[in-house]
Amino acid sequence: MELPRFEHHTRPYLGQYELLPPPEIRTRLAKLQTELRRADLDGALITERIDLFYFSGTAQDGWLWVPAEGEPRLRIRRDLERARAESPLGDVSGLNGFKDLPGIMPPGVRRVGLELDVLPANLYLTLAELLAGLELSDVSLPIKTIRMIKSDYELTWMRRAAALNDAMFGWMGDQLRGGMREIEIEAAAAYFLRSQGHLGVVAVRGFNAECFWGHVMSGPALAVGGNAPGPTTGQGLWPVRPQGAGWRRIGRHEPICVDIVSILGGYQVDQARIYSLGRPPDEVYRAQEAVLAVQDLIVDRARPGVVAGDLFDAAVDLVRAAGFERSFMGLGNGVPFVAHGVGLELDEWPVIGRGSNHVLQAGMTFALEPKIALPGVGMGGVENTFAVTEDGLERLTNYPDRIEVREP
Amino acid sequence: MELPRFEHHTRPYLGQYELLPPPEIRTRLAKLQTELRRADLDGALITERIDLFYFSGTAQDGWLWVPAEGEPRLRIRRDLERARAESPLGDVSGLNGFKDLPGIMPPGVRRVGLELDVLPANLYLTLAELLAGLELSDVSLPIKTIRMIKSDYELTWMRRAAALNDAMFGWMGDQLRGGMREIEIEAAAAYFLRSQGHLGVVAVRGFNAECFWGHVMSGPALAVGGNAPGPTTGQGLWPVRPQGAGWRRIGRHEPICVDIVSILGGYQVDQARIYSLGRPPDEVYRAQEAVLAVQDLIVDRARPGVVAGDLFDAAVDLVRAAGFERSFMGLGNGVPFVAHGVGLELDEWPVIGRGSNHVLQAGMTFALEPKIALPGVGMGGVENTFAVTEDGLERLTNYPDRIEVREP
Repeated sequence: MELPRFEHHTRPYLGQYELLPPPEIRTRLAKLQTELRRADLDGALITERIDLFYFSGTAQDGWLWVPAEGEPRLRIRRDLERARAESPLGDVSGLNGFKDLPGIMPPGVRRVGLELDVLPANLYLTLAELLAGLELSDVSLPIKTIRMIKSDYELTWMRRAAALNDAMFGWMGDQLRGGMREIEIEAAAAYFLRSQGHLGVVAVRGFNAECFWGHVMSGPALAVGGNAPGPTTGQGLWPVRPQGAGWRRIGRHEPICVDIVSILGGYQVDQARIYSLGRPPDEVYRAQEAVLAVQDLIVDRARPGVVAGDLFDAAVDLVRAAGFERSFMGLGNGVPFVAHGVGLELDEWPVIGRGSNHVLQAGMTFALEPKIALPGVGMGGVENTFAVTEDGLERLTNYPDRIEVREP
Repeated sequence: MELPRFEHHTRPYLGQYELLPPPEIRTRLAKLQTELRRADLDGALITERIDLFYFSGTAQDGWLWVPAEGEPRLRIRRDLERARAESPLGDVSGLNGFKDLPGIMPPGVRRVGLELDVLPANLYLTLAELLAGLELSDVSLPIKTIRMIKSDYELTWMRRAAALNDAMFGWMGDQLRGGMREIEIEAAAAYFLRSQGHLGVVAVRGFNAECFWGHVMSGPALAVGGNAPGPTTGQGLWPVRPQGAGWRRIGRHEPICVDIVSILGGYQVDQARIYSLGRPPDEVYRAQEAVLAVQDLIVDRARPGVVAGDLFDAAVDLVRAAGFERSFMGLGNGVPFVAHGVGLELDEWPVIGRGSNHVLQAGMTFALEPKIALPGVGMGGVENTFAVTEDGLERLTNYPDRIEVREP
């Protein structure tokens, strides 16, 4: 029994271990240095894999010292040879042990920024001892603020990831058969994407917020509660990971949601669509009409200068008028946002949510996912990834938004 | 173009959202309470998803208070209804906000254990403020010590995960064709496993130690350096995740290693085998002979009471005698261990490594992975998951250890 090969979908950009262009890194470091000076920090010590890659071009095991002014220093435990090949930085050398870390900083340093949102407590406490006398503060907010604005290079990767995801959604309709389990559908999506270069691990910054690649859910499983930080959860396979695809066999005339993150070059896009084997209940169509109206509203209004919280409030007003307010963005009054930033990680900024004071700027990217839970039935919902441009939104994921009804 | 379905591999134990049996939880909590009293702690506050599931049966978003004596209390943010259905604990209620957390503890509490190895620094600092006046200490070592010993229930899941993994290895040989990319091979393995219930996210406790499902690597990519905390790394697709399967197309007469974690019910097993299209070079066979001798040696000697570090030293002696010492367990003198504990997470205890003072006990489980890097050529290597019994080792993964040579 053989699997299909998807070589024909492969684009020319696939097939090489492509390094991060040096100008990208220079621009990012200059932004960080500006933020460090603004925060009166002498520098930042960076080690989280994604941040380290973002500012140095390599994710090898090590630490990056970014001074408020001057040349950064990269100290690598493993693998130094690869780090030197991957990073264009000039000052790259080995780090024997954690105890040598203070030596990465020049004399006179007083205030140091650390990624306190992700560093484990024990590591932080050890660092605090090792760097006794220095003032340590959180540098994660400046980092998240910088990473929120994508360059043309980053947007190019996101468009590529979106094109791959679009192709998967187009292929998926032909895979669905009555009686398939949710987990089988998700496995098919994963095979399509992974065999063409999906990065694998979906990076999520938040603690305890792991996620596989998204959720495949059907019928009533679309409207169950759970711990996932989004509007849907799904049943999951076992309580140890109580979210995503479950064992349920898909039926006829019920919504089947495929909500899957695609990743190329490190950059994620998030997209969700509803399929059905035979026409689903009218209620699903009414909810779908409402979520598409929310998408239209945000596409119409979003542009640089708009406050994200105002967009969320307008979306809630619209959904209230349609009579779905109580189940907007999930059961139990739902999650208080309709879009999350997306890029190298799934939980980036901006957040389009209640009270969000993020002001839209060109280069921001977010996954807009208006969803309305229909207990016992399923949901109406759609998700697309957008980029903010000077003129409004550029839509990156482009598979048709309609509920895709296939032969029952 | 359709994908195969693997329904025929499905065992009766698949297909249900199976809850953790209450006696398991009672036993685990009793062990933790003993450890808390031994450490003179009044209780522990547990929130990491895997630990929370292990001690309560649910991984919903919340906190578990385990007092040194008396009944535990579970406080859930989301989803309370599911937590009540999943956990057999008697005292389960909602938690509105983080600020209500101190109320979970009874008056008079003085010393509290926290999972300081995984709690992010910001969360720890907020907790320290919220719990001002209490003495906070690390409870991760007792937790890891308890989780290191598997019950019969846990071993049953590991045997099931191993049987699924064995089936995948048997099927994989037929999938290999000259010119396939490493990433396509890994995608095929993932599809086989995931469509039959592989849990998805490979839980790893260590910071920055994320991993997809393992590594598929071929020829020279089997002997490159990298940041993975194991003997092999692979090239990876992009520097943002510099490990695992890459774009390389497999050739003939070269080793192709498939090293994949299978997970059912939350429980992982780790297994690696070498395939080849046409006979690989003699050097690979010589290295393979040495790693199989290491496996035999450890199977022969491992039993309750044996010190893990002594097993490692004996393995090194054997490899030295075979002339492969310099590339044992990877390039650059390799990693200093030959086996890692495995269970709900991939980096559990015991570690069979240099200086390890873990003493083997019945119920321990580990992935034994002797590997010898052959720069420019590939490697010799094997990986199997074992359980320690009163009489020695039980082998859980059982696909034949030989290098599997297929038609070129």
